[in-house]
Amino acid sequence: MSEMIEQLLRPELRGRTPYGAPQLDVDVQLNTNESSYPVPDEVVRAVSAALHEELSGLNRYPDREFTALREALRDYLAKHAGVSFRPEQLWAGNGSNEVLQHLVQAFGGPGRTALGFTPAYSMHPIITETLGTRWVDGQRDAQTFDLTVESAVEQAREVDPHLVFLCSPNNPTGSALPFEVIEAMLEAAPRALVVVDEAYAEFARPGTPTALSLLADHPRLVVTRTMSKAFTLAGGRLGYLAAGPDIIDALRLVRLPYHLSTPTQTLARIALEHADLLLTTVEAIKEQRDRIVTELTELGLAPVPSDANFVFFGGLADAPATWQALLEDGVLVRDVGIAHHLRVTAGTPQETSRFLAAMARLVPAHMMTKENP
Amino acid sequence: MSEMIEQLLRPELRGRTPYGAPQLDVDVQLNTNESSYPVPDEVVRAVSAALHEELSGLNRYPDREFTALREALRDYLAKHAGVSFRPEQLWAGNGSNEVLQHLVQAFGGPGRTALGFTPAYSMHPIITETLGTRWVDGQRDAQTFDLTVESAVEQAREVDPHLVFLCSPNNPTGSALPFEVIEAMLEAAPRALVVVDEAYAEFARPGTPTALSLLADHPRLVVTRTMSKAFTLAGGRLGYLAAGPDIIDALRLVRLPYHLSTPTQTLARIALEHADLLLTTVEAIKEQRDRIVTELTELGLAPVPSDANFVFFGGLADAPATWQALLEDGVLVRDVGIAHHLRVTAGTPQETSRFLAAMARLVPAHMMTKENP
Repeated sequence: MSEMIEQLLRPELRGRTPYGAPQLDVDVQLNTNESSYPVPDEVVRAVSAALHEELSGLNRYPDREFTALREALRDYLAKHAGVSFRPEQLWAGNGSNEVLQHLVQAFGGPGRTALGFTPAYSMHPIITETLGTRWVDGQRDAQTFDLTVESAVEQAREVDPHLVFLCSPNNPTGSALPFEVIEAMLEAAPRALVVVDEAYAEFARPGTPTALSLLADHPRLVVTRTMSKAFTLAGGRLGYLAAGPDIIDALRLVRLPYHLSTPTQTLARIALEHADLLLTTVEAIKEQRDRIVTELTELGLAPVPSDANFVFFGGLADAPATWQALLEDGVLVRDVGIAHHLRVTAGTPQETSRFLAAMARLVPAHMMTKENP
Repeated sequence: MSEMIEQLLRPELRGRTPYGAPQLDVDVQLNTNESSYPVPDEVVRAVSAALHEELSGLNRYPDREFTALREALRDYLAKHAGVSFRPEQLWAGNGSNEVLQHLVQAFGGPGRTALGFTPAYSMHPIITETLGTRWVDGQRDAQTFDLTVESAVEQAREVDPHLVFLCSPNNPTGSALPFEVIEAMLEAAPRALVVVDEAYAEFARPGTPTALSLLADHPRLVVTRTMSKAFTLAGGRLGYLAAGPDIIDALRLVRLPYHLSTPTQTLARIALEHADLLLTTVEAIKEQRDRIVTELTELGLAPVPSDANFVFFGGLADAPATWQALLEDGVLVRDVGIAHHLRVTAGTPQETSRFLAAMARLVPAHMMTKENP
């Protein structure tokens, strides 16, 4: 960057690098928690027909309030999450990043503080700080990556934040958050909007409740979700959230008008109408996830039990070296910058086998031992 | 909004209302400067085929750098605007609002000031202030709405802004800006990024130059454009900008990763490949625009000469009353909040006739006269 443009740049951005995992052309891509399953033909045909129908009318702006999409989201959540909403409690954006950005724009800002618990979704601090809001890096247990009620309450009381980001299941560590932590947080942070990021909720182990069911009783709670993972639509960019209608009204003040294109609204709406079919791969992915946990444990590594479509595992002597060795073996995983750990997405059975075979070969040289710490 | 949520909201947002023209179901919609012409069948077929092809692969994230789209934008600008760029000088977003937001996020922010010249595109101050940047409402000539070199320089020296927004052709008034104003502004505001919003450039009168041709010599200049107007794709949401590559690098620091969906990239790319065909309606629209100027003048009203796909006209006793009377006649135009003036989009010949016939009926009672001031 030239010195002149560097001078014009906002001071806090100077020296930063853009966020994003490497987009490499590798056989087995298990680094961004995408679904490895293509969109099924039946959904392709239905979306294609609907888009074809409306392309000639794209001379007109989209429905600014994406009414039909909200109704489809309502129907999906009622049927699949068992929680009833009115459309005016639902909001959507180009990926869950955009709905998170809307939340920070409306409820954060200069002079305000957001609290999250590291390691968690790395876009939470990036979106927060890019919008001039102070970020406080709260801590999880260094061994289990759990967040206990006691620890959450103590940190919230100390920071007294305006915004709290919780992640359930947590990314990159994978485990869901007990309801008690969410409820304790709402009490311990009395002036905060509490955001629970449920991007991976559809992959949770049986019996894991969704924070959506807490919304009726907690007007300062927001739950965000995405169609990028379980709906196998990362390329379609549709994130959404549920909250009280006055929170939605606030988001309307900061959204750019017509932020959701007509094709985006239609693609997401038709996909939601085919939720039963699209979600059939979720069980297959959960099987591979549990297989990864089992087999990495057998290899002597330390995977964290997961409610998501990925596994975070420790026990590596040098995580970047293992990341590189896997890449050379045609398997791309994610180095999230935590010593001795990597994160791998659960893919198809074949992809999982490729990854596990590569790990079995690597373990003797790459595992953390007394001799190789 | 409940008192509790109002308390959580950023103070400067309290009491605001969301931006957006009414989305009403009216026969003749001439209020948002959309194209009245549908996307041609040939383009619908080509886009539809390309989308169909890639829907099954939407399980993967989009190309974060939208490389193919940038190349298509480069080819379009080389052929149709006569200016050569490298892809790394081009940037895109979900509508030009989003690229404007990226600019303010990177180069504005708390403690910084943006200057624009009112009346101009109303999203400029909204985006600026929503991101905590101070907005200064510079002034145009109250009669002609022109911005002269002298006035621009004087206002820029007084404000010493970090960002300047110019609009050429200007919305809502319609006239293009002389190059001298842009060049004088770059000199008079030595620490500013100068943004020229050319959303309506394709409709300019013959001989009107584009600020794209100034970019090579002015590293602090940015030119924004959109596919919503001349490309008849308001529903597709694709805005873009050209600037120096280090300005683009700065925008990469604030964009949300994967902000452009795969279908958005494809739709825009295929449309750009069909630019010749899509732009055939531009001449027809310009004819109707010039007809509006001529006929409103004959009716005794005061239209501003236009380089855009709309006409801003004065001479009304009570603009909101005329807006309402037109609506009751099935014609929706835009009241931009400037006394005695309305803005009308140039539509098809039939729509223009409907509007002009309605105006002819209304003029006797609605025109500003000494008796009806």
